[in-house]
Amino acid sequence: MIRAMLDQLLIGARRAARSLIYADRNALLAALQQALTQSSVPILAANAADVDAARVSGMSAPMLDRLALDAERLRAIIASIATVIALPDPLGRVLEQWQHPQGMQIIKRSVPFGVIGIIYESRPNVTVDAAVLCLKAGSAVLLRGSASALLTNRCLAQAMRAGLAGVGADPDAINLVDSIDRASVTEMLTARGKIDLLIPRGGAALIAHVVENARVPVIETGTGVCHIYVHQSADSAQALAMLMNGKTQRPGVCNALETLLVDVAIAKEFLPMCVTALQTAGVEVRGCALTHELCNGVNAATEADYAAEFLDLIIAVKVVENLDAALAHIAQFSTQHSEVICARDQVAIQRFCDEIDAAAVYANASSRFTDGFEFGFGAEIGISTQKMHARGPMGLHEIVTYKYLINGSGQVR
Amino acid sequence: MIRAMLDQLLIGARRAARSLIYADRNALLAALQQALTQSSVPILAANAADVDAARVSGMSAPMLDRLALDAERLRAIIASIATVIALPDPLGRVLEQWQHPQGMQIIKRSVPFGVIGIIYESRPNVTVDAAVLCLKAGSAVLLRGSASALLTNRCLAQAMRAGLAGVGADPDAINLVDSIDRASVTEMLTARGKIDLLIPRGGAALIAHVVENARVPVIETGTGVCHIYVHQSADSAQALAMLMNGKTQRPGVCNALETLLVDVAIAKEFLPMCVTALQTAGVEVRGCALTHELCNGVNAATEADYAAEFLDLIIAVKVVENLDAALAHIAQFSTQHSEVICARDQVAIQRFCDEIDAAAVYANASSRFTDGFEFGFGAEIGISTQKMHARGPMGLHEIVTYKYLINGSGQVR
Repeated sequence: MIRAMLDQLLIGARRAARSLIYADRNALLAALQQALTQSSVPILAANAADVDAARVSGMSAPMLDRLALDAERLRAIIASIATVIALPDPLGRVLEQWQHPQGMQIIKRSVPFGVIGIIYESRPNVTVDAAVLCLKAGSAVLLRGSASALLTNRCLAQAMRAGLAGVGADPDAINLVDSIDRASVTEMLTARGKIDLLIPRGGAALIAHVVENARVPVIETGTGVCHIYVHQSADSAQALAMLMNGKTQRPGVCNALETLLVDVAIAKEFLPMCVTALQTAGVEVRGCALTHELCNGVNAATEADYAAEFLDLIIAVKVVENLDAALAHIAQFSTQHSEVICARDQVAIQRFCDEIDAAAVYANASSRFTDGFEFGFGAEIGISTQKMHARGPMGLHEIVTYKYLINGSGQVR
Repeated sequence: MIRAMLDQLLIGARRAARSLIYADRNALLAALQQALTQSSVPILAANAADVDAARVSGMSAPMLDRLALDAERLRAIIASIATVIALPDPLGRVLEQWQHPQGMQIIKRSVPFGVIGIIYESRPNVTVDAAVLCLKAGSAVLLRGSASALLTNRCLAQAMRAGLAGVGADPDAINLVDSIDRASVTEMLTARGKIDLLIPRGGAALIAHVVENARVPVIETGTGVCHIYVHQSADSAQALAMLMNGKTQRPGVCNALETLLVDVAIAKEFLPMCVTALQTAGVEVRGCALTHELCNGVNAATEADYAAEFLDLIIAVKVVENLDAALAHIAQFSTQHSEVICARDQVAIQRFCDEIDAAAVYANASSRFTDGFEFGFGAEIGISTQKMHARGPMGLHEIVTYKYLINGSGQVR
C-alpha cells in the first residue's frame, strides 16, 4: 500500500525531472514564491494546528520552537527563494573539456541527479528550502518530514505544487510523502534506481537509521563532535573568544564545540580563566583530573563525555601533553566535521591542517563558520560528514552530478 | 575470528594511511616496482599453481585466461607503475580558494580518503593496479581478491609490502585479506568508520551483493547495457563501423554495445546490411518483429533481451518510430553507462545529449571509448555507474576527497 503510493510518487517525480531539463527553473522558483505568499494564511493556520497538537502531546519547548512558524518566519522562508533565484545556475557548467587524440571533443558537464529524496525532522522550513534548492539544481524532490509537521508540510507542498501547475509546469517536481507511517521511510531507503540521492537531515538517531538501512546513495550529514585545541603558542584572548563563540553562541547546532583541549604548558594560567568564563555563561564543565585540580566546579569527564555531541551548554575539557596528544585525541573522537587549532606557531598550525582529517580545519577561527551561507554558497542543504561526493557545507554545486559528452565524427577503437 | 583479523588489518591500514601524509609516494611506487621485478619468479610460480588448481576445478577458458600471468603480462603490470609515477599528484591541489568577508582565507584542498577497500574477482593485475593507484592517491588499501587467485595475490602483496618495508615505509599501506571465507567480504562491507571508500570490481553478482549489503561508502561500477541509436540522418557507413566496433571488438567488457536501435525510416535499407555484417562476425541477432521481417536469421528478442548485459557475441535489435521512442527505450533499459547516437541532424544530437542520463553520451563515436586510459586519465580504477561522487571512468582524481582549510586571525561569528 505504502510501496504502491511511493512508486506512484516516484514515477511522477521521474517524469517531472525529465521536464525540468528544458524548464526555466528560475521562473518556477518565482512561481513557488508567489504561491506560498498567497497561501500564507492557510499555511500559518495549519502550522498552528500542528503546534497545538505537539504541545498537547508534550513536545519540549525547544522542539516546539523549531516546529512553529509565524508571519515573520514564513516571510523569511519565502524571501530566501529570491536569494536562490539570484544564485548562478549549477547546471550546464563545463567542468572540464579536452580533445581525444583521435579528434573527439570530450566535455565534462554538470547535470541534475534526477530525483532527490530528503528525510527530515520537525522544522517546516526544510520543506520549502529543500524543494527550492533541488528544483534550482534540476532535480525533482521527494520530501518526507516528521509526523508533527504534517499539516504544515501538506499545506506548503500543496501551495508549491499549485504554483508549478499555475505556470504550466509539472507539479510532480515537488512531492510530499503524505504519510506518518515509518514504512514510508523504509521504502524510500530501498528505492534503488528510483531515488538518485538521499539526504537525511536531523538528529543522530535519524542519520544512523538512514545510513544503516539505505540501499540508495546517501550523503550522511550533521553529527559534529568538534574540538578546539589551544596550543601553547596561542593568543589567550583570541583562544578564549573562539572557545566562547563555538560553545555558547548556538550550542544546539552541529558546528558548535563539544571539547576543549589545552596544552599542559599553558593549562595553569589559561584553563581557570576559560572555566570561569564558561561557567559564567552557564556551561557545565566536565574535565580531566588536571582540569579538576586547576579549576573550581569541574565535574569528572568520562570517556563517553569525550565522544558525546552534547548539543547543549556542556563541555568536555582535557589537558594534553602536546600537539601529538591533541592530534591523537581528535583522531579518536572526531566525527570529522570541524576542528580548530588556536596557535601562533606556524609549524603547529601546518601539522594540524595536514594531519587532522575533517571537513573543515580551522586555524584561529571559530568552528561556527562551517555553514553554507558563511562559506558563500548562498544556500545550504546540509553539512556532509562523509568523504564521498561532498564534504562539509553543501550548496547547489553539491546536489548536481556530471556526465561526459563525447562529440565525434565516426571514431572507433 | 575473521572480524578480529580484519580489525587488525584496518588498524594497521589507518596508521599507515597517516604515515602517507608526509611520504614521498612516488618513491614508494618505485620501491614496489623493484620489489615486484625481483619477485617475478615466485609470483609466476604461484600463479601457475592457481591456474592449475582452477583448471582442475573446471574453470572456463576465458576465466582461466583472466587468471593467468606470464612473464610478459607481469612485465606489463610492473611497467604500468612507471606510468602512474609519471602522473601528476592528485593531492594537495587547491580546488577553490576565496576570502570570507571577515577576512579568513578558505581553501578547498584535495586530500586522501584514508583507507580504501577493493573487492574484486579473478584478475591478479587488479592487486597491483589498485594498490599502486591508492598509494599514489595517499590512501592505504585493503585488497580482497578471489579465492582462485589467492596464491598469486599473496605473493604479489608480500612482494609489495616487502618493497615498502625495504625503503623504511609502513608495509601496512598495502593489505591483502588473506582469507577465502566470504565472511571477510561481509566484514569489509560493514566496517563503518574504518573503510572510507569501497570499490567493487567484478561481475553483476558481486556488484549487487556489495551494493545490497554495504554500510560503508561504495562506488558502484561496471554494469553496462549500452545502446547505439541510429537516427535517420546518420551516415550509414559510419554507423555500421561504430556498431561493429562497439559489439565485436571486445564483447566481454562493460562499454561494449548490447542493443541496436534503428529509426524506422531507414530500417529497410540499413538494417539488413547491419544484420549481415553482425552475423558474418559471429554475432547472434535477437530482434523485434520488424527486424525479423526485414532480415534473415534473426531470433525473436524478448523484454529480457533488451535488459540483458550479454557480454557476449549477442545483440538485441529494435526498430523505433523516432528519436522520442529511442529516448524512451534507453530510459527504460539503460544502466546509465554509455549511450551512442549516430546522426547528422544537430537537433537530434542536441536532444540526445541533453536528455540521455548516462555517464558517457556519444555523438558519432564508439561506446568503447569509455575508459580511463582513453579519457586520458593515465590509469583507471573502475567505471562508476552511479551519480554520486564519480561518474564514468575513475582515475586518480576520483579516489581522493577534499577538505576546507580556514586560516583566520581569531574571527568569531
